[in-house]
Amino acid sequence: MTISEAIPTPVRLSAVAAPGQPEPTPALEHLYRGFEQEMLVPLWTQIGDLMPAQPNSKAAAHLWRWENLVKLAAEAGRIVPVGRGGERRAIALANPALGGRPFATPTLWAAIQYLMPGEDAPEHRHTQHAFRFVVEGEGVWTIVNGDSVRMSRGDFLPQGGWNWHAHRNAASEPMAWIDGLDIPFSYYTESQFFEHGRDRLDAQETGTPEYSRSERLWAHPGLLPLAQTQAQHTTPLLAYRWVDTDRALNEQLALEREGYPATLSPGHAAVRYANPTNGRDVLSTIRCEMHRVGSGARTLAKKEVGSSVFQVFDGQGTVTVGDKQWAVRRGDMFVVPSWQAFSAQCDAGQASLDLFRFSDTPIYEAVHTYRSQVDAQA
Amino acid sequence: MTISEAIPTPVRLSAVAAPGQPEPTPALEHLYRGFEQEMLVPLWTQIGDLMPAQPNSKAAAHLWRWENLVKLAAEAGRIVPVGRGGERRAIALANPALGGRPFATPTLWAAIQYLMPGEDAPEHRHTQHAFRFVVEGEGVWTIVNGDSVRMSRGDFLPQGGWNWHAHRNAASEPMAWIDGLDIPFSYYTESQFFEHGRDRLDAQETGTPEYSRSERLWAHPGLLPLAQTQAQHTTPLLAYRWVDTDRALNEQLALEREGYPATLSPGHAAVRYANPTNGRDVLSTIRCEMHRVGSGARTLAKKEVGSSVFQVFDGQGTVTVGDKQWAVRRGDMFVVPSWQAFSAQCDAGQASLDLFRFSDTPIYEAVHTYRSQVDAQA
Amino acid sequence: MTISEAIPTPVRLSAVAAPGQPEPTPALEHLYRGFEQEMLVPLWTQIGDLMPAQPNSKAAAHLWRWENLVKLAAEAGRIVPVGRGGERRAIALANPALGGRPFATPTLWAAIQYLMPGEDAPEHRHTQHAFRFVVEGEGVWTIVNGDSVRMSRGDFLPQGGWNWHAHRNAASEPMAWIDGLDIPFSYYTESQFFEHGRDRLDAQETGTPEYSRSERLWAHPGLLPLAQTQAQHTTPLLAYRWVDTDRALNEQLALEREGYPATLSPGHAAVRYANPTNGRDVLSTIRCEMHRVGSGARTLAKKEVGSSVFQVFDGQGTVTVGDKQWAVRRGDMFVVPSWQAFSAQCDAGQASLDLFRFSDTPIYEAVHTYRSQVDAQA
Amino acid sequence: MTISEAIPTPVRLSAVAAPGQPEPTPALEHLYRGFEQEMLVPLWTQIGDLMPAQPNSKAAAHLWRWENLVKLAAEAGRIVPVGRGGERRAIALANPALGGRPFATPTLWAAIQYLMPGEDAPEHRHTQHAFRFVVEGEGVWTIVNGDSVRMSRGDFLPQGGWNWHAHRNAASEPMAWIDGLDIPFSYYTESQFFEHGRDRLDAQETGTPEYSRSERLWAHPGLLPLAQTQAQHTTPLLAYRWVDTDRALNEQLALEREGYPATLSPGHAAVRYANPTNGRDVLSTIRCEMHRVGSGARTLAKKEVGSSVFQVFDGQGTVTVGDKQWAVRRGDMFVVPSWQAFSAQCDAGQASLDLFRFSDTPIYEAVHTYRSQVDAQA
Repeated sequence: MTISEAIPTPVRLSAVAAPGQPEPTPALEHLYRGFEQEMLVPLWTQIGDLMPAQPNSKAAAHLWRWENLVKLAAEAGRIVPVGRGGERRAIALANPALGGRPFATPTLWAAIQYLMPGEDAPEHRHTQHAFRFVVEGEGVWTIVNGDSVRMSRGDFLPQGGWNWHAHRNAASEPMAWIDGLDIPFSYYTESQFFEHGRDRLDAQETGTPEYSRSERLWAHPGLLPLAQTQAQHTTPLLAYRWVDTDRALNEQLALEREGYPATLSPGHAAVRYANPTNGRDVLSTIRCEMHRVGSGARTLAKKEVGSSVFQVFDGQGTVTVGDKQWAVRRGDMFVVPSWQAFSAQCDAGQASLDLFRFSDTPIYEAVHTYRSQVDAQA
Repeated sequence: MTISEAIPTPVRLSAVAAPGQPEPTPALEHLYRGFEQEMLVPLWTQIGDLMPAQPNSKAAAHLWRWENLVKLAAEAGRIVPVGRGGERRAIALANPALGGRPFATPTLWAAIQYLMPGEDAPEHRHTQHAFRFVVEGEGVWTIVNGDSVRMSRGDFLPQGGWNWHAHRNAASEPMAWIDGLDIPFSYYTESQFFEHGRDRLDAQETGTPEYSRSERLWAHPGLLPLAQTQAQHTTPLLAYRWVDTDRALNEQLALEREGYPATLSPGHAAVRYANPTNGRDVLSTIRCEMHRVGSGARTLAKKEVGSSVFQVFDGQGTVTVGDKQWAVRRGDMFVVPSWQAFSAQCDAGQASLDLFRFSDTPIYEAVHTYRSQVDAQA
Repeated sequence: MTISEAIPTPVRLSAVAAPGQPEPTPALEHLYRGFEQEMLVPLWTQIGDLMPAQPNSKAAAHLWRWENLVKLAAEAGRIVPVGRGGERRAIALANPALGGRPFATPTLWAAIQYLMPGEDAPEHRHTQHAFRFVVEGEGVWTIVNGDSVRMSRGDFLPQGGWNWHAHRNAASEPMAWIDGLDIPFSYYTESQFFEHGRDRLDAQETGTPEYSRSERLWAHPGLLPLAQTQAQHTTPLLAYRWVDTDRALNEQLALEREGYPATLSPGHAAVRYANPTNGRDVLSTIRCEMHRVGSGARTLAKKEVGSSVFQVFDGQGTVTVGDKQWAVRRGDMFVVPSWQAFSAQCDAGQASLDLFRFSDTPIYEAVHTYRSQVDAQA
Repeated sequence: MTISEAIPTPVRLSAVAAPGQPEPTPALEHLYRGFEQEMLVPLWTQIGDLMPAQPNSKAAAHLWRWENLVKLAAEAGRIVPVGRGGERRAIALANPALGGRPFATPTLWAAIQYLMPGEDAPEHRHTQHAFRFVVEGEGVWTIVNGDSVRMSRGDFLPQGGWNWHAHRNAASEPMAWIDGLDIPFSYYTESQFFEHGRDRLDAQETGTPEYSRSERLWAHPGLLPLAQTQAQHTTPLLAYRWVDTDRALNEQLALEREGYPATLSPGHAAVRYANPTNGRDVLSTIRCEMHRVGSGARTLAKKEVGSSVFQVFDGQGTVTVGDKQWAVRRGDMFVVPSWQAFSAQCDAGQASLDLFRFSDTPIYEAVHTYRSQVDAQA
């Protein structure tokens, strides 16, 4: 059963007595029956939903606990095989207000993926942009166009659309990580292509190198190889290592302490993962960031057009999304719907609260509809 | 009642015996109940729908006859008032496969709007991009930021998001035209803002000038005013007149006859409405074009990522969308879903078949996911 | 004899007693002799010239009278043949402060070109960007890539680098016009390529059409042919006709009178000739504009990085460049060096003072070094 | 005495009997005297020089030996003070074919700068773009907008126009390094602004930190601070350290050995120093690169529009520029004029030949006149 079959098709219009609506009369009923027959819907019955004063997201702010995600993923690891057809043992967050669909937000897919020792997820490619982020564990290599990329705690691994990729667990323990993709956006805009690759990788691709060829070519600060110097729409750098991210965040907080501008607000350091060939987002539909909120600090409350998914990378604290608030800890994931105010506070006893975030911001920037608003702090 | 309330919220998963699916067992049923409770959906039950080999549009190719549209719009003109709240007497095409929603395609809104003699549609603004196109009639002026713009047959009138606008019928006859907007795209991506403007226009804004101030400043070929020379995301030119469009199309066909490259394929001339400040699309989410298919000619069959809405401006012919085919005439509107092949043929006895088209192509180009494929002609 | 042979090659340094200079001593003289021998020059003897507080142009403001230009061009028409080798009967303005070189400004070439009845200037192409502007006369067609383009009073005819071009006088009278090129810029930066084309044009290229194919394809306001919709670095539109330019300027002044913003300053209308495919300059190194100063009006005095050449197209008035001032009339040409203030005033009895201008502004904008400053008006 | 005063101003034209020139006659002489009087120069006497078939550089390929540069700089260190007025103890390469001017090439300035122990070079700023490169020595900090940046062997330190900067030798030995600027380009295009800063730095700015604040904020591979995420025309990263450059070059050669594409040609690794905010050049007029030619390897011979300056960073080898060839070693500097073929070969006994290069390529790319040609290798 596909989702589309579940959608009812006829137009149904009711003449109702309501402010802004025409008076219900037999003539109006006759008109509405005519509309239904011709597959027409008047603006005046829909304008409140379609053209609100500001975004009024269909999605709900929601939290998923990491311990529950891991428990169910491990259970799936025991009973659901990985292979051609299902392709991946990926289990997606389904926003409670989005109709049971596997969409974390209207545009973003977020899933926990799980691979047992010795397992391979078969090679394929798709136009949807993707990334992996590792909150814990190690032992899996993702093989992108034949380049084996190690996945370790804190690493961010983007993978632009239409690149061949497979995953291999080369270790003796299961491993879980999260995937982010623009599946819902591609689904609504109907722009997806997909192809199966080879069922088995070549022997040379099954190595477990410390660093991928991609990193050896591209992970040097401010240095681009002359042999491949053209700007590329998606990043050619396939791994952003935690050691670099951690240092960048620490330096921002240190500079702030020394009196120099470096942070978003007091105690709130953040980096954006960037495509080194053009400085833009790693993926043309998904922005990825790592935030560090220092001990006891609180971020400014900010509303943005578009939606985000967060995962707590480290530390403990409290996050506020619209009118909801949760105490969060390592691995917990939550979504921020469009134009709902978000802020985070690090618990006083913690070194910091580290939050990985991905959002659909590049889409709005590309079509010039991005807006944001920082609320005055209470 | 809003659309969102109609969407069911629980996750429902069924363990079924099917290729690519794990074998239904009590353990799998237990796992699926766990997923449902935690608001999770596995990829393996959804991949066929979410990641097809190529776009498999939820939308249907569909045709609306102009005579039916006008008849119902005139009926609405008699019984539905225009004013604050409902804002516009606009009646939208509802794609039969999109669940009764007023969406012509997954991203595009197309409506017939109707104004009685002496009526005003009140001023407002919204972030959704919009345009008007006039297939017949005259007598209405659209007032954009206080600039009165005449609307006559064949004119194309774009109006970028967040500009104040109202409409006024200054003539003694009703008038109908079509509106195109990115309402569905804004709705899914949840980026809409809306404000009411003044309830009454100033006296000086109710003039009925032959040409708007916008045209007097911007409608000179290849000439930009030095006083406002910055590139703008949406076009500052508020009217593209039929006389210019008609001449441009005729010249392409004449050049083709003289042996020079000018057309898309033999007998198929086409222009894109462009923003003179940057040569890009008039609106950052909507591409608008006028096509002329010469007598007896047929366009190449083309598949494109993204969807289109067409209106027949003049002539008669046959259009083919995927596996559907219709004989069309002035005013008829139809939609082309993503990746369905489209071609058009002008009847032999006709001077030409003129087709106005709008599409969501700029969105895909902006995020680098546009693809197209021209089929070899039979 | 080439210009380069005239340049002396040895380094010559003098130890002088002057503020900011080291004290002349035998040791300093010894050091300077060492510098000379090794082809070295110290910054401290040159810094005042090389790094001034603001641009201090080597070029001079200068005026050339049209009647003198035409008289000498006509004399050349009688005694200097046009043909392969010399290529063009073009006579360049030589800025009095630029060493006798045929450079109107450090970056711009400006010449009067003259063609006798029945004469052809042979086909060639070069990477230097060029344009023609016609202050008076008619009868010549410029043939660009085989497309014959009529040249009439007020017409502006850009021609991007590396296009084949020839000129033909198809009339019974001589004709003069001006050429603008980036020859000095290409000369200093040493980026020029040149090729001879065919010695004789094909019969079909020697027509005298009212409108070129280029115009028929591209000269429709806001409309771009779908068959060639890629942005191009230089404009594909080969003629910008006076009727359009004149109307655009008149509308700006009319809008100003009606109380709307449209002019640069009171009574000062201006348009920029633009590439319709991207809204940018017609040529990537040369900006071209037409200015109209209304009766009795005066422009703001403005300093800009980079240099300009003006030709008076119509009317009479007074122009001020730095500390020079001239009464000017039709055809007169003058240069404005970098960072010298320019203003123009139309004589009270004149309908308007129309000034054609070309400048090297796109170069500075491309490398982000453009600056300007408008002086408060006295 | 400034350079401009040395340039003769009158136009001088000679009627000569030569191919492509009009026959010398009294009438021609009369015409030429008329041209001279009106400050006019005909194209036909200049076209060979101005419009050659391909760039024919006025500049000469030339080599400066590092030992001579250092010897003279040290001599200057003893007798020429550094301070306000002269501003810097910088000694520029004067191309032997560019008239004794301190121009290494028509567009580029290259100088050795020398600072004695305890000396300061005073603060100023200018619109000219600049960088430092350190071939040997240490102990100097350059202070850019108050941020102290260490300068050590192999470090590349760009500094975009209009940033305040000073230099301080905090060590007990003199130190030399090279400066590259676009002074000649700014000089010809007359776009320079200059201001003096403070005569003395604040106490806090005279520290000698291992890493500048700029590096702490920007030198993390693929990571950009969210607090300053706007693209900038010139790089905000003020030091590119040798350890990173060396590793990037080694990895390219290692990947080549492993069979993967990474180098420009066999044995020829190279990186471009890039602006992390946009992936473009560090400076909008100057491209900077480091090349490593492996033991015994030889680069392809390449012609490019525009000019370059090289400094040998390490190793020994042979470089060929047009028809000249030199054996080179550490510190030697040489220039490659426009469109002269360049290649380099590493001596067989050497680990590698490392060449630092800077060029004016971004200028040509910005105005779309860049061309290159790789010659088939002998």
